[in-house]
Amino acid sequence: MTSTPSPDSVSYSYLGPAGTFTEAALKQVPDAAGAHWKSVNNVGEALDDVTSGRSIAAMIAIENSIEGGVSATQDALTTVPNLRIIGEYLVPVNFVLVTRPGMALADVKVVNAHPVAYAQTRRWLDANLPSHGHVPASSNVAAAATLLDTELADAAVAPPGITEHYDLDVLASEIGNNQNAVTRFVLVSSETTLPEPTGADKTSIIVELPDDAPGRLLEMLEQFATRGVNMSLIESRPIGDSLGRYRFVIDLEGHILDERVADALLGLKRFSPNVIFLGSYPRADKLATTVTPRYGNDVFVEARDWLRAITTNEPSAI
Amino acid sequence: MTSTPSPDSVSYSYLGPAGTFTEAALKQVPDAAGAHWKSVNNVGEALDDVTSGRSIAAMIAIENSIEGGVSATQDALTTVPNLRIIGEYLVPVNFVLVTRPGMALADVKVVNAHPVAYAQTRRWLDANLPSHGHVPASSNVAAAATLLDTELADAAVAPPGITEHYDLDVLASEIGNNQNAVTRFVLVSSETTLPEPTGADKTSIIVELPDDAPGRLLEMLEQFATRGVNMSLIESRPIGDSLGRYRFVIDLEGHILDERVADALLGLKRFSPNVIFLGSYPRADKLATTVTPRYGNDVFVEARDWLRAITTNEPSAI
Amino acid sequence: MTSTPSPDSVSYSYLGPAGTFTEAALKQVPDAAGAHWKSVNNVGEALDDVTSGRSIAAMIAIENSIEGGVSATQDALTTVPNLRIIGEYLVPVNFVLVTRPGMALADVKVVNAHPVAYAQTRRWLDANLPSHGHVPASSNVAAAATLLDTELADAAVAPPGITEHYDLDVLASEIGNNQNAVTRFVLVSSETTLPEPTGADKTSIIVELPDDAPGRLLEMLEQFATRGVNMSLIESRPIGDSLGRYRFVIDLEGHILDERVADALLGLKRFSPNVIFLGSYPRADKLATTVTPRYGNDVFVEARDWLRAITTNEPSAI
Amino acid sequence: MTSTPSPDSVSYSYLGPAGTFTEAALKQVPDAAGAHWKSVNNVGEALDDVTSGRSIAAMIAIENSIEGGVSATQDALTTVPNLRIIGEYLVPVNFVLVTRPGMALADVKVVNAHPVAYAQTRRWLDANLPSHGHVPASSNVAAAATLLDTELADAAVAPPGITEHYDLDVLASEIGNNQNAVTRFVLVSSETTLPEPTGADKTSIIVELPDDAPGRLLEMLEQFATRGVNMSLIESRPIGDSLGRYRFVIDLEGHILDERVADALLGLKRFSPNVIFLGSYPRADKLATTVTPRYGNDVFVEARDWLRAITTNEPSAI
Repeated sequence: MTSTPSPDSVSYSYLGPAGTFTEAALKQVPDAAGAHWKSVNNVGEALDDVTSGRSIAAMIAIENSIEGGVSATQDALTTVPNLRIIGEYLVPVNFVLVTRPGMALADVKVVNAHPVAYAQTRRWLDANLPSHGHVPASSNVAAAATLLDTELADAAVAPPGITEHYDLDVLASEIGNNQNAVTRFVLVSSETTLPEPTGADKTSIIVELPDDAPGRLLEMLEQFATRGVNMSLIESRPIGDSLGRYRFVIDLEGHILDERVADALLGLKRFSPNVIFLGSYPRADKLATTVTPRYGNDVFVEARDWLRAITTNEPSAI
Repeated sequence: MTSTPSPDSVSYSYLGPAGTFTEAALKQVPDAAGAHWKSVNNVGEALDDVTSGRSIAAMIAIENSIEGGVSATQDALTTVPNLRIIGEYLVPVNFVLVTRPGMALADVKVVNAHPVAYAQTRRWLDANLPSHGHVPASSNVAAAATLLDTELADAAVAPPGITEHYDLDVLASEIGNNQNAVTRFVLVSSETTLPEPTGADKTSIIVELPDDAPGRLLEMLEQFATRGVNMSLIESRPIGDSLGRYRFVIDLEGHILDERVADALLGLKRFSPNVIFLGSYPRADKLATTVTPRYGNDVFVEARDWLRAITTNEPSAI
Repeated sequence: MTSTPSPDSVSYSYLGPAGTFTEAALKQVPDAAGAHWKSVNNVGEALDDVTSGRSIAAMIAIENSIEGGVSATQDALTTVPNLRIIGEYLVPVNFVLVTRPGMALADVKVVNAHPVAYAQTRRWLDANLPSHGHVPASSNVAAAATLLDTELADAAVAPPGITEHYDLDVLASEIGNNQNAVTRFVLVSSETTLPEPTGADKTSIIVELPDDAPGRLLEMLEQFATRGVNMSLIESRPIGDSLGRYRFVIDLEGHILDERVADALLGLKRFSPNVIFLGSYPRADKLATTVTPRYGNDVFVEARDWLRAITTNEPSAI
Repeated sequence: MTSTPSPDSVSYSYLGPAGTFTEAALKQVPDAAGAHWKSVNNVGEALDDVTSGRSIAAMIAIENSIEGGVSATQDALTTVPNLRIIGEYLVPVNFVLVTRPGMALADVKVVNAHPVAYAQTRRWLDANLPSHGHVPASSNVAAAATLLDTELADAAVAPPGITEHYDLDVLASEIGNNQNAVTRFVLVSSETTLPEPTGADKTSIIVELPDDAPGRLLEMLEQFATRGVNMSLIESRPIGDSLGRYRFVIDLEGHILDERVADALLGLKRFSPNVIFLGSYPRADKLATTVTPRYGNDVFVEARDWLRAITTNEPSAI
């Protein structure tokens, strides 16, 4: 972001309330320190804050190492125009089992949990609470907060930071099925100035296939392969008008200002009736992209010089 | 299924209770008429019934024209061994808004709805009940049933058939965002006898990429392209061990006993460390597969005859 | 050619002497009428005339519908720098059997013929002169001319126009094996001004593979396929340093000023250590190139505009 | 060859006369020692000897590291049926300048040489005999032999072994442009028994493209790429009915009894209206073929076993 307004006037939206994984992602953004953090209920509300100007940016979950792409986010980014991803953040996903102060594990009969969190802690719950019931919650924090409001459930599955915000006891920690689970968040803005390439960047796009003729997906992938551009993510999403029609959510290694990425995007734009450029931004893992020498920027520049010399009839250009 | 036991001993599992879209799918299965229909709570339970022999088959949702692949089903089919898809069924997805007898639309303040149903009816709800609140339910039928048990909500989003099972009033019909929405269900069995090819078949597989080297997905797709085999579905699912590692859920047009499909599966099996064959079965839409003549069965047979004549040193074989 | 010097100072080189098929090709060039026609002995001499400025252009044979590419021409175009093909001409290839005045077919025992002409008339010669002997000549015209100088042979295989230049009798006409045989000639100049695109153009290039890694040729062809550029000719020629190393002589449908051709050449230039651009010029057969709409010039321009708007941070460019 | 007749009844044909490079190739064949060597005038005659049974095999030149494929051989192998290549031999190609005994280099005015040999020694001749004339000969040996019969020429370009057969003086040795030039010969038989795979084999085929639709060549090459089969030679030859229609002469690394080669040939046979199998035989250079593990024979066998278990309804086969 080129010009930063005074912190007190700046707002960042995130899926709240305080204590969510999304809040943990927002804590990783240096520019967000001291700004107003606006808690919202869903990704649509978060993106609406950005397009309306109520918030300078929004933090939203886009992919989970266990569950895959977050469909709601992918679909929202497809339909809401004028958005740009400007940063990527990784948050380890683990869970604690919390309860009202004083309750013992042996007394837990019903567990409140967001369906995704429930699925990701099911193994521990089945082993330790074999006969428990499940009440679905609308979010991980809501599951915990409800314990203090109603007696619907005896315990809740929640993010580790929950006890900073609610007066609850932790009955068990690290109860997730997979200790390496991680969720990828992106910071979304309406700012169109491209971040500078860092050598360790990603470019996110959404591409619609032109039709369902056989081999279309292959053709799309060749646009990347012939320019040495690697994908770190590819997810299909139904276009929604009928079964069998897809768009693809794709993350490429590299920045749109890298020649090979720009050329692949040109090829893609010619191929597809609808390419949405979601942004080029530094990778969270800071892993530098390895570029085969024949796809380096200089090779693209030399080829263009060669072609230009021919087409402008320079005498030396043969 | 080659031999059908007497109806009273046969059980079919489905995501219940009575009134769900899954039940509507099961109603399309002629063999299931008169059998015992076992209502279960989730796809894991349904598949467990099949592998344990408690049910002869289970009906499960696998893809939605709006939401995409059903992740829980895709992941369950990946991990539960010894399963086969033996049939495919399409159910139009639409919703009604129901309430306790006597309540008017104007009095509805809180709506109970499964999160997916809520998303798919949000447009109507926002237009007609602009200030409504939402309580999440664990299933579409549970949302409706709860109305009779508690006063948590005033109305519920439910499948059209709900009033056959519950004494509720319909406040509004066809409230879905998309009138063409459809869900695809599959009937899963542990029977390994392949259904006969009908000329209008699908083959479902799950394929893991060998590694994350660039171009692997392209290579996988070439196995189909070089045999003229079309895909009607391709979905990526994270393998789960780290971000960036995927398996693909794929539906092919054609039957494993079609030469071109068999040959493509051979190529895939050589390429991938893990190919799961989920079954070849008649398409729900009965659309005959168009096969380019050069990929016809006879062409495969002739080529094999030609090769065999050479490798067995037949004098005429040059 | 932008400025034409006065005809008497302009020279065109061709493989002579008068009466050859090459002379027949040169007769098709309107600009050459009235200029000096310089007969040379081989393609090297012809190209040397052009590079040294002794001739404004040279007519050389590049492909024969029966024999394939003319290796000597292909190799000369690879090694002589600063040349451009500016036109293409087709000459039907047929032959007559000529002899000294008064000799009868029955008296012919030895036939003088250039080896290629001999191969292309062998069927007629074997049928009509079953016990004839063959003396090789250095050219088709030399074969005929020799009849008047020595008694080495009794008859000669020659081009139909030979009797305009030599006092010989025609014993038989149209003695070629293939009545549709045709030779393709190109007019080569050192002029680097590109002819305007006509919509029915060819572009000739020579491309060296970067190394002999498997799949390199496939990779090269993908540069054309992904831009909808068709090849009308592809010939391999050994690079000559060892067996198994090749360059390819390629004719593309379209003009370098066509966007899709220019883009394919850029891709090729990045891929190959050595691309020789031999020219874009109107096709002899005047067949307009069919361009799939998605590879039209406008599609390329639109894609570039889209990319430029993004990379220059235009606010509307998302 | 399974059963060898007594040497005195066995004949090998080769392009003669004694002293040619072809004879040098035949000297490399252990089985030919002691047999009758039949000198013929051209490749057609040699192949005719084989198909008629007059010779057990024929040695013919197929590729030159400088000139490329030998068109006459490639075309003959396309049209003559019932032939098999059973061996490959490499002969270094170098030349000597020979003359009648007693003549000095300074006295040489006219040089007799086969056109190909003349092209390959032109650099030395131009440097050392700048004003020489050239008389074309029908073969390298004929060029030398003529010196003793006529005074048409003063010297001849000939193979190094020429002085074993003719009483001539060598004026200069190693006069070829390229000291590494080599010609590849193949031994052709009508025996259809395949030689055993040695791990260092080649397979030669000729393949016609189905039509001139764009991308056909790419499609053909994908048959090899998707099975990890490398090409050591690819040459296009005009089919001859019109410009722009091609067949391809291809050498593959590996033996038809290697699974990956057999599978690629099946794919090719299905793709092409005309595939000619010319044989699998040990490579002259004895270089073992490197096979990527995923294309090993065992991988093909395992994949077939997996498919068979599914299609034969084995209960364990899921």
